[in-house]
Amino acid sequence: MARLLDQWRANRANGNGRRVPEYAALATAIRGLLRDGRIPLGVRLPAERELADALGISRTTVTAAYRDLRETGHLTSRRGSGSFTAIPGGQRVGSAGLWTPEDAGDMIDLGCAAPVAPAQFAEAVAEAANELPRYTAGAGYHPSGLPALRERIAAAFTGRGLPTSPDQILVTTGVQQAVDLILRLLVSPGQAVLVESPTYPNVLAALRAHRTRVVTSSVDPVDGWEEELLLAELRATRPTVAYLIPEFQNPTGHVMPHRLRSLLPSVAHRAGTDLIIDESFVELFLDEPTDAGAARPPVASFDAHARVLTVGGMSKPYWGGLRVGWIRAATPVIARLSALRVTVDMSGPVLDQLVAAAMLDRAGEVLAARRRELRERRDVLAGALRQQLPQWTFTPPRGGMGLWVELDAPVATALAQAAHEHGVRLAPGPLFGVAGTLERFIRLPFTLPGPDLVEAVRRLAGAHADLTRARPASWTPPSLVA
Amino acid sequence: MARLLDQWRANRANGNGRRVPEYAALATAIRGLLRDGRIPLGVRLPAERELADALGISRTTVTAAYRDLRETGHLTSRRGSGSFTAIPGGQRVGSAGLWTPEDAGDMIDLGCAAPVAPAQFAEAVAEAANELPRYTAGAGYHPSGLPALRERIAAAFTGRGLPTSPDQILVTTGVQQAVDLILRLLVSPGQAVLVESPTYPNVLAALRAHRTRVVTSSVDPVDGWEEELLLAELRATRPTVAYLIPEFQNPTGHVMPHRLRSLLPSVAHRAGTDLIIDESFVELFLDEPTDAGAARPPVASFDAHARVLTVGGMSKPYWGGLRVGWIRAATPVIARLSALRVTVDMSGPVLDQLVAAAMLDRAGEVLAARRRELRERRDVLAGALRQQLPQWTFTPPRGGMGLWVELDAPVATALAQAAHEHGVRLAPGPLFGVAGTLERFIRLPFTLPGPDLVEAVRRLAGAHADLTRARPASWTPPSLVA
Repeated sequence: MARLLDQWRANRANGNGRRVPEYAALATAIRGLLRDGRIPLGVRLPAERELADALGISRTTVTAAYRDLRETGHLTSRRGSGSFTAIPGGQRVGSAGLWTPEDAGDMIDLGCAAPVAPAQFAEAVAEAANELPRYTAGAGYHPSGLPALRERIAAAFTGRGLPTSPDQILVTTGVQQAVDLILRLLVSPGQAVLVESPTYPNVLAALRAHRTRVVTSSVDPVDGWEEELLLAELRATRPTVAYLIPEFQNPTGHVMPHRLRSLLPSVAHRAGTDLIIDESFVELFLDEPTDAGAARPPVASFDAHARVLTVGGMSKPYWGGLRVGWIRAATPVIARLSALRVTVDMSGPVLDQLVAAAMLDRAGEVLAARRRELRERRDVLAGALRQQLPQWTFTPPRGGMGLWVELDAPVATALAQAAHEHGVRLAPGPLFGVAGTLERFIRLPFTLPGPDLVEAVRRLAGAHADLTRARPASWTPPSLVA
Repeated sequence: MARLLDQWRANRANGNGRRVPEYAALATAIRGLLRDGRIPLGVRLPAERELADALGISRTTVTAAYRDLRETGHLTSRRGSGSFTAIPGGQRVGSAGLWTPEDAGDMIDLGCAAPVAPAQFAEAVAEAANELPRYTAGAGYHPSGLPALRERIAAAFTGRGLPTSPDQILVTTGVQQAVDLILRLLVSPGQAVLVESPTYPNVLAALRAHRTRVVTSSVDPVDGWEEELLLAELRATRPTVAYLIPEFQNPTGHVMPHRLRSLLPSVAHRAGTDLIIDESFVELFLDEPTDAGAARPPVASFDAHARVLTVGGMSKPYWGGLRVGWIRAATPVIARLSALRVTVDMSGPVLDQLVAAAMLDRAGEVLAARRRELRERRDVLAGALRQQLPQWTFTPPRGGMGLWVELDAPVATALAQAAHEHGVRLAPGPLFGVAGTLERFIRLPFTLPGPDLVEAVRRLAGAHADLTRARPASWTPPSLVA
């Protein structure tokens, strides 16, 4: 090691003339050896004193250098057994959902089904800023959410034919927190949670984080839910909770039939199951008149035993950077969730909630524009796929934000890897299921502008064409999938 | 029951002439019987069909009424065994930290140590609104935090003598989430976590929620930490994590001596303990020159083994309604926390983070004003207490936001109860410890304006005077303590 390090003092010159401290130079040298593999990963570095003696420098310098290496992730300690070489981000392997800005650049991101903010956003922010003084004079803590926002959310449910009082609403920092809070309140490690297969990857990640036992009920790419099968699975497995997406199911895009909606709550009640109904996409119907939503009664409207917890939020119809979601449930459940929430993050951001209220006041125009935009982009994406990749099949959804595409072979993961090299970040089917299933599918969101979608399909066709090339081992699936 | 309900149809007239539906009238009648105790709590209501027959109405009406009662929390179901009467919020008993707006009014809130927003807040919001377009053109997801904010936070640490790169910073939605994320990553149910006694109630609540085993090390109201005792406890109990507040410890206000700071990390490392160092109050020194912070090296600056996770945030020095906190740790730990965070709430609010960045750019003036204000209010509160309640003792802290007051008898809970009747919300000592200890203490924040503090002390003197009166059983401690 000392021999390998003979030139380390060279690192003290830092380009612009000034000299860096000895410890930093030593750390840089060791990082260099790690990078070009002259020191392998996972090997034990000499004790600080040994290395100090070998290099003829003070132990303090070596200590500082090792500490620097630890903070940059090139060294890990195991108590009693010394310091071992590592690479930064090595810990990321297997960790779900980490955003990696490095992946940006020319990359077209089809991993996230997330739109940019609506045109009315700045206007809503200005309105919120005017409202703010009424709140900045207080401590700013409203764990259940700002009354003004809870009222608007309750009114929206009531408007959809589901009478709701503000006491039945908890405002959360996004739908993800809504689901996480409910899991914390209702599910213990090892208990069963039923989800659709395929379903939303970040909820699967949350279920893994809570160490729940995941049971799945499949949603057919063409036909959607199989009523008898789903109800039978509820009766048989009696899961603690079931998580379902009745509107424009993510990722298949299906809409749950009226009859199944009406049967779910009582079957769930008899099975002792609470239902998490995710309405993230409920407003995003693309082929129907504006009042079409009313034709689809919320699952909660069939709930006679306070078994349904309905979650929704601003991320999909409005903007993901606005972290506002909600839970609708019976008042006592909301009270318990609010109490739990204080231990999790105290309370939500006041300003974001005021912006959300201002956006909801503009729901009509915002959603109309969003639907128009998504309809056009869906059709552009569908057209490009039919033309360039006719061997892939899909049913254009009547709403939502993505196509669930069946490939001509079970190669989704390999395709995503190839696509990455061609400049497209892709969410392969297995991300939406458990145990590496769904290799025949990919989700293609249509949230980007038409030209980007056309270019993305062109690159996908290229990736599909050279699926045979060997892949660099380093590749990992897109980390943030929304 | 049918007899008790004979007049229920009277409820159909709703004052302004219009008639409410039958089911609503029936629900109102049953709520009335519950309220005035003619139906006791926890009793089983007749089955829907029975009641329908007895009242000569359709079963649907009874079903709808029962559902209404469930949603308002007056009825709970137990599978197989029918519907039982309840009271809304009954579920709140024993649930920590639920904010109850009803408690407002003339009540002076000494439960929360939380200031109103600084004068510069509106200005910072305007600046943030100008920055926003650079972000609204994207999906809005930044699970590790906005780079611009991470850089400012890292620079602030570096400025305090602790070299820090933005990669070592995770932006959270407040300090509470910072602690919760760390507990999720590092601690399993049943593992030991060491905290100071007394300590911050919401962290105790989080530890309970994580089902950790809490071990305490006492901080003396007069002398603060006992170095040898704390280090011995670390060596003996070898907790998975220790949570400590070195600056203006909450609630005692003590500052950890330099020597103990320098010893903690290595002792913790040998014990296999990771340290959560809460710096919420670090900027709030009140009796020292502005650069005094530098005289107190961060505990992390003595960390040679990446054992220290430093948490801090905007809530205390700036405003609690701005939900921005952070974690400073080794890069690989931050990477793992960011991945975990995606499963918890995806990402933080963009707008709040931009406001936080703008506030940090104004740190100098904002903190100077905050210190001046807190210094004056501390002295007003201390003066009023010495004058009106001389039998209580306290050591005015050199910083932070509250006095830790020792009473003349172990009556904190009874006093808080009496104070509530006199119009003061009070945080009794036991909230800051485990197993009902600390009955001799209360925390009195000095975040409210001087006149409110003087009035609060006047009311406390009144409450202290009639501590002998009987208390209504209904009283519960202040729910949100910040």
